[in-house]
Amino acid sequence: MKILVLHGPNLNLFGRREPHIYGSVSFAEINRRLQGLARELKAELVIVQSNYEGKLIDTLHEYIDSAAGAIINPGGLTHYSVPLHDAIKAMPFPVIEVHMSNLAQRVEPWRHHSMIAPAAKGSVQGFGWRSYVAALRLAVDLAREGKAKGKKKR
Amino acid sequence: MKILVLHGPNLNLFGRREPHIYGSVSFAEINRRLQGLARELKAELVIVQSNYEGKLIDTLHEYIDSAAGAIINPGGLTHYSVPLHDAIKAMPFPVIEVHMSNLAQRVEPWRHHSMIAPAAKGSVQGFGWRSYVAALRLAVDLAREGKAKGKKKR
Amino acid sequence: MKILVLHGPNLNLFGRREPHIYGSVSFAEINRRLQGLARELKAELVIVQSNYEGKLIDTLHEYIDSAAGAIINPGGLTHYSVPLHDAIKAMPFPVIEVHMSNLAQRVEPWRHHSMIAPAAKGSVQGFGWRSYVAALRLAVDLAREGKAKGKKKR
Amino acid sequence: MKILVLHGPNLNLFGRREPHIYGSVSFAEINRRLQGLARELKAELVIVQSNYEGKLIDTLHEYIDSAAGAIINPGGLTHYSVPLHDAIKAMPFPVIEVHMSNLAQRVEPWRHHSMIAPAAKGSVQGFGWRSYVAALRLAVDLAREGKAKGKKKR
Amino acid sequence: MKILVLHGPNLNLFGRREPHIYGSVSFAEINRRLQGLARELKAELVIVQSNYEGKLIDTLHEYIDSAAGAIINPGGLTHYSVPLHDAIKAMPFPVIEVHMSNLAQRVEPWRHHSMIAPAAKGSVQGFGWRSYVAALRLAVDLAREGKAKGKKKR
Amino acid sequence: MKILVLHGPNLNLFGRREPHIYGSVSFAEINRRLQGLARELKAELVIVQSNYEGKLIDTLHEYIDSAAGAIINPGGLTHYSVPLHDAIKAMPFPVIEVHMSNLAQRVEPWRHHSMIAPAAKGSVQGFGWRSYVAALRLAVDLAREGKAKGKKKR
Amino acid sequence: MKILVLHGPNLNLFGRREPHIYGSVSFAEINRRLQGLARELKAELVIVQSNYEGKLIDTLHEYIDSAAGAIINPGGLTHYSVPLHDAIKAMPFPVIEVHMSNLAQRVEPWRHHSMIAPAAKGSVQGFGWRSYVAALRLAVDLAREGKAKGKKKR
Amino acid sequence: MKILVLHGPNLNLFGRREPHIYGSVSFAEINRRLQGLARELKAELVIVQSNYEGKLIDTLHEYIDSAAGAIINPGGLTHYSVPLHDAIKAMPFPVIEVHMSNLAQRVEPWRHHSMIAPAAKGSVQGFGWRSYVAALRLAVDLAREGKAKGKKKR
Amino acid sequence: MKILVLHGPNLNLFGRREPHIYGSVSFAEINRRLQGLARELKAELVIVQSNYEGKLIDTLHEYIDSAAGAIINPGGLTHYSVPLHDAIKAMPFPVIEVHMSNLAQRVEPWRHHSMIAPAAKGSVQGFGWRSYVAALRLAVDLAREGKAKGKKKR
Amino acid sequence: MKILVLHGPNLNLFGRREPHIYGSVSFAEINRRLQGLARELKAELVIVQSNYEGKLIDTLHEYIDSAAGAIINPGGLTHYSVPLHDAIKAMPFPVIEVHMSNLAQRVEPWRHHSMIAPAAKGSVQGFGWRSYVAALRLAVDLAREGKAKGKKKR
Amino acid sequence: MKILVLHGPNLNLFGRREPHIYGSVSFAEINRRLQGLARELKAELVIVQSNYEGKLIDTLHEYIDSAAGAIINPGGLTHYSVPLHDAIKAMPFPVIEVHMSNLAQRVEPWRHHSMIAPAAKGSVQGFGWRSYVAALRLAVDLAREGKAKGKKKR
Amino acid sequence: MKILVLHGPNLNLFGRREPHIYGSVSFAEINRRLQGLARELKAELVIVQSNYEGKLIDTLHEYIDSAAGAIINPGGLTHYSVPLHDAIKAMPFPVIEVHMSNLAQRVEPWRHHSMIAPAAKGSVQGFGWRSYVAALRLAVDLAREGKAKGKKKR
Repeated sequence: MKILVLHGPNLNLFGRREPHIYGSVSFAEINRRLQGLARELKAELVIVQSNYEGKLIDTLHEYIDSAAGAIINPGGLTHYSVPLHDAIKAMPFPVIEVHMSNLAQRVEPWRHHSMIAPAAKGSVQGFGWRSYVAALRLAVDLAREGKAKGKKKR
Repeated sequence: MKILVLHGPNLNLFGRREPHIYGSVSFAEINRRLQGLARELKAELVIVQSNYEGKLIDTLHEYIDSAAGAIINPGGLTHYSVPLHDAIKAMPFPVIEVHMSNLAQRVEPWRHHSMIAPAAKGSVQGFGWRSYVAALRLAVDLAREGKAKGKKKR
Repeated sequence: MKILVLHGPNLNLFGRREPHIYGSVSFAEINRRLQGLARELKAELVIVQSNYEGKLIDTLHEYIDSAAGAIINPGGLTHYSVPLHDAIKAMPFPVIEVHMSNLAQRVEPWRHHSMIAPAAKGSVQGFGWRSYVAALRLAVDLAREGKAKGKKKR
Repeated sequence: MKILVLHGPNLNLFGRREPHIYGSVSFAEINRRLQGLARELKAELVIVQSNYEGKLIDTLHEYIDSAAGAIINPGGLTHYSVPLHDAIKAMPFPVIEVHMSNLAQRVEPWRHHSMIAPAAKGSVQGFGWRSYVAALRLAVDLAREGKAKGKKKR
Repeated sequence: MKILVLHGPNLNLFGRREPHIYGSVSFAEINRRLQGLARELKAELVIVQSNYEGKLIDTLHEYIDSAAGAIINPGGLTHYSVPLHDAIKAMPFPVIEVHMSNLAQRVEPWRHHSMIAPAAKGSVQGFGWRSYVAALRLAVDLAREGKAKGKKKR
Repeated sequence: MKILVLHGPNLNLFGRREPHIYGSVSFAEINRRLQGLARELKAELVIVQSNYEGKLIDTLHEYIDSAAGAIINPGGLTHYSVPLHDAIKAMPFPVIEVHMSNLAQRVEPWRHHSMIAPAAKGSVQGFGWRSYVAALRLAVDLAREGKAKGKKKR
Repeated sequence: MKILVLHGPNLNLFGRREPHIYGSVSFAEINRRLQGLARELKAELVIVQSNYEGKLIDTLHEYIDSAAGAIINPGGLTHYSVPLHDAIKAMPFPVIEVHMSNLAQRVEPWRHHSMIAPAAKGSVQGFGWRSYVAALRLAVDLAREGKAKGKKKR
Repeated sequence: MKILVLHGPNLNLFGRREPHIYGSVSFAEINRRLQGLARELKAELVIVQSNYEGKLIDTLHEYIDSAAGAIINPGGLTHYSVPLHDAIKAMPFPVIEVHMSNLAQRVEPWRHHSMIAPAAKGSVQGFGWRSYVAALRLAVDLAREGKAKGKKKR
Repeated sequence: MKILVLHGPNLNLFGRREPHIYGSVSFAEINRRLQGLARELKAELVIVQSNYEGKLIDTLHEYIDSAAGAIINPGGLTHYSVPLHDAIKAMPFPVIEVHMSNLAQRVEPWRHHSMIAPAAKGSVQGFGWRSYVAALRLAVDLAREGKAKGKKKR
Repeated sequence: MKILVLHGPNLNLFGRREPHIYGSVSFAEINRRLQGLARELKAELVIVQSNYEGKLIDTLHEYIDSAAGAIINPGGLTHYSVPLHDAIKAMPFPVIEVHMSNLAQRVEPWRHHSMIAPAAKGSVQGFGWRSYVAALRLAVDLAREGKAKGKKKR
Repeated sequence: MKILVLHGPNLNLFGRREPHIYGSVSFAEINRRLQGLARELKAELVIVQSNYEGKLIDTLHEYIDSAAGAIINPGGLTHYSVPLHDAIKAMPFPVIEVHMSNLAQRVEPWRHHSMIAPAAKGSVQGFGWRSYVAALRLAVDLAREGKAKGKKKR
Repeated sequence: MKILVLHGPNLNLFGRREPHIYGSVSFAEINRRLQGLARELKAELVIVQSNYEGKLIDTLHEYIDSAAGAIINPGGLTHYSVPLHDAIKAMPFPVIEVHMSNLAQRVEPWRHHSMIAPAAKGSVQGFGWRSYVAALRLAVDLAREGKAKGKKKR
């Protein structure tokens, strides 16, 4: 069972950038923890970080037939990227939106709105690195359930 | 370790009301599953459902010194209840917002905004009854971590 | 055939509060006229007035299986109560929104919008106590028609 | 006692146009039912349908001194016609706004607002052909009351 | 020198409709006063009132080559009629917008905006029947000046 | 195969009105070119221009059963005419919206929105008289396809 | 002379909740100071705190004929409660709105608007517990003045 | 009969500033033409130009009891000056708003709104220096009429 | 102890201007009552009224080191004066905003917002001349408290 | 004669993604039909699809001097890409905007606005693959006309 | 070469007012540094600070023919002063807008918009006293260039 | 001392694209002038232009530890790119926003807002190529000052 983990622009700076908002756990450490949980859950992770919207979309297209689920933290693309929204909506597997911070508590009003949410299965936000962990667990559960039922998402 | 589970107005109708949105698992069954998970995680649940905003606030006040965390699905109060927002913000323990559906996918534009989110620690939404399960697990983890560190939330 | 008549906050002051807007017929007199018409139409009325949103919702839940229709004047809850909207939408019988005054002619702009309308079958407004009378007649007609056809609303 | 029944643009297509919204009762049949009720209530109907805003206004002007009331379904003119609003406001008799569907439930947001409502006595909407019937009954009642009291509307 | 005087929907009711806003001078009397002033200024008036937007546009088209100026009170069409705006903008002679009342003092917010103003040469409003008189004098002055200079408007 | 060509208010002034926006090809010439293409495509055109919204609606109603398609340039009615929107939506054949100019490039912000678009099959705009030509070709293709498949639009 | 002192949701937490905003004087202490001032001014206080909107309204109705004035801090209900607005407006005595903090300085934009203000006589805000004291003094002065003149408010 | 002529900020630059908008007639020349007309109409003018909002208000206060009317071109103060609005509203004589250009045709959207209009008797705009002339004539007519009737404005 | 009393534009007309809104107590009388209370409270008043925004700011600057508090009714400047806001915010002593009327009850929507409020300590509004009296008492109390504690405001 | 055909993000999924909106004709098939028409019209196509905004801009820059026209379906970039808008505006040849669906009929309100439209020559939308065909035909006609006249676009 | 340096309301308090925003360099020191740079650049400075909008406008008018450029920090007038905008636009020399802070980073949303920007040549903001220095250097460069070319600004 | 110079999408077309807005100095010439100034100021420039948002972000990340400052003209990304905003905010050195034109004077309203401004140290705009020159000088000054003080930005 293959699960995509997509990290959007600037997320590679986690642990260095604004630690009062994003915590002090590094990007590498978050991925390590996800790999640990994936092993425990018998899932295989494909982890991609890119500062290019196009690369994130290409990755989704590439795994359209082989992935069973995805979790994505779209970073700054969250708030306006219609192409990423469209790519997520076109996937046959559930995609879960993840945020370290609680968007509704960010001071910039434009961080309160997600253009990705209408295309995602659901979201987990506000729990720091734990958001990723909870999302991965949900992704695997949904993928298992989908497989059991032979059902496509939505 | 005591965890509050608060259900807002009309949620007692789960399983009966608009199953294409809220799923067909009944309200009683959701609570049973939460009780099962709580036993597994060695946590004690206090489950309250009310159609009165005042009752939900009274319950938070009542457990202000004894609860270690809370999960709340505010139902229709999600979208405007400043008093519930204020009560949550005044709690010394983390409160997690839960929704069965993904608010951003609801057709009514006024369902897209949560007045509760700015007061909550974070949110899990869009996964049906699994939203509750993931939230409860997060609440217990946060409570344990807080206790370990002797730290107050935020 | 049981028909609910729900009166929201402050409506018990009819006849006393702003008579240039709400007329000088008292609350008790309106209910008497409705009882008179109900007898004529062979319907049984359950009349409830409350200043608590929660009580109005509880009442709908209580009669979910026994009522054949409802008319409701939500008073000040008209303009924002999502929980009341949700409760009305969850009912298997038609619910009719009633207003003494014509909302579009009220000077406060926030009185022009009804949060209840999207959940109700339809509305009658602007005719003083006659709004109630016309609504009750419609509720009985719809209930009779529904029964004849064995059909659920919507 | 003369009552005007005014039908705005496209309403002649009732029974043919979008029956899931407007029902399958034909335009002719609605008028027949209104004529039947009028005979019962000892009122005389003047029924006019036009796709021209100007014609509807001319008709109101024509009967300014001879009609005792009016019911109007302004069709698409509902949402912006200031001239129709002004003509209705200038009438000495009560004019009742009628809609087959419940405007608040239409998917287009611009159908939620009525430019006619601030000029009308009140409205009945959401009950299909029954909206017309209830409105006619109210129009006759108001006209009788006005005559009894020798009072002008508002 | 031919000057058009166009009166929009419902203006034929002047003197009868809401005298506290429009004054008690009748429509016929206003036209008489304009005719008097026109004679004094050696101008010929073409006076048209219609409740049809189409008729007002047809009239402008009809006189496109023979009129030297126009004054128009568009009535309720003031606030939204793009076709009337376009017709006025297409005229080779100056068109002056006239209102009895001061639009900014009307209670309805939608009366504060004129869709006609961006197409008109200028406006005179708020002076009752005197608005017409001042506008006619300006129209004649502008027409004389244009003729003297052999200049087209704008 | 009968195709309606509807021209809204003021379009008869093409070639004379604001040539920097609408080009210098006259109204008559555009119709001649459309007739030429229609002959080539074996289609019969019914061409109607009117400054009355009501006349355009009446024409659609008149041909509801005999036309196979329509192209319409609604002129100034584009931006607000709900009755025209409703008439187009009620037609059983595809109706194509046409504009000489590219609405998004017009300086008035209110020209950027079309009330007709949600009712039309599609639109061609910005190509001067070529917009009409391309639209007519599309209308005929769609009509042929519909006939071939015995299918109704949408 | 009876003066109502109404405290809305969560205000019982004063002294404990966000002291940088609400100060460190406890709820009990504020009431003690008000009782002290009341004795000095020869007024009798009825003090009610509730987390239920319905209870606050019921209290106003209960004292409609016996109170001479009221001061109210509506807490989170300030920003949307139309029922509370309506209850206040229906009282025959002046009701004064009180806030500890200056609403205009709160970071959440939705705290800047009061739905209660249009129904209240006036407001005192931004002075911590002193807001209550100043309001009580004003309430007594207004009640005395009203009694002296035998006048009803507004 | 004393008539105030008030010119707001920067209007002393007329004839020099943006002549394509304000024309090439100089400020001095406009005042000369007004003086000429005043002599003809047997009125005395008090002409004041200032770049200080305070000075314009002081002038109105100074002549509150001696002037019979005023015309004012508030320049840039038109769009926001509440103090000037309040001063005008407090005057016992009619004040007429004048603009050289047609505000609705200015490219800046904030020029389309006048904060002065709701306080003025009416307005004349879009006719260059002729706006002033027409306004002065109206001011004198209104003052004469008021004197004849011994009536205060509004 | 020196307290500034600042009156903005047009307030010198109190007692004469719109008495149904501002009461019939004259400007001089209000100042007399404030002087009386100041004597009683052992405070010295500096009272300034000006129609110039600049003068009000200059006065604040002049007393920046010698005043212990201020009360200000900014009149029409309330709604937009950023410079006055900035001057108040720069003062080391508390400044209290005062209004005779309750801004939320004024009919003009632009009177509902105060640009001064975010810079002031707090506000008292809606009590006529009593607003000033209550504000002065609060200013003196706050100044005394500040002096006692050797504390600067905020 | 070289014509660019640019396809934005996700359009390579045509035929697979939401066929009820985009039809079931595959991306490859659309390009084949365009190639067929190009051969017929003696034009050479350069077809580029990319999920990278930067690649689409690079392609326009690359052909700035060699292409005679372009048609572009910007996919999700339609709604916000200012860089793509700027690149299109900088081209010396006409660029035509194409959409399979009619944007005004999409349920998401943010699909109703095109950021590309103000830079494009015109648009064709709502006709499925036929939109591309009509656009290509128009592009070739415009390019031929431009060449004949030696004229640059706009 | 004469360069105006205009400082708006409250800027004389620099060094004293909110040093975390405006820095701790005093107003006198900023002017000294500007005088130093001016001597170096062979330019003569006219420095004016005023809390009166009228005074700033008067100063611009006074130097309309003798200054070669200006830099202005309009202080709180930045956000709404149309008269200052108009005065700047009327100057024949370039005027540069200067701000110590970066307006986009100020917490008040109304500080994000400049009414002066549309009239100024350009702006320098966010660099504390260095903003003034960079602006003065630009003003002198532009003035020299203009003189060399004998060109007027814009 | 290394200073980044980042040019966003389409800026490589300077000198060719819309010279009335961007001037006629070519992109290569601007870079040459910056290199000349850098040599004079003993700074080393790294100049990057890209039409890919991702490339601009990658470049900032690459120099996060080695650059001392940056100037950036984000081109069309100015108005919405949250990822670029986030990357700039994450840099430990000051980043200066540069624009050739004055954004507030561009006709498209969406050009008036910068998403980059809240993350940048400050901005210089409206002076053509001189904007770059002034920004580079400021960047070097700030970098020198930062180094002298051993201080990080903000």
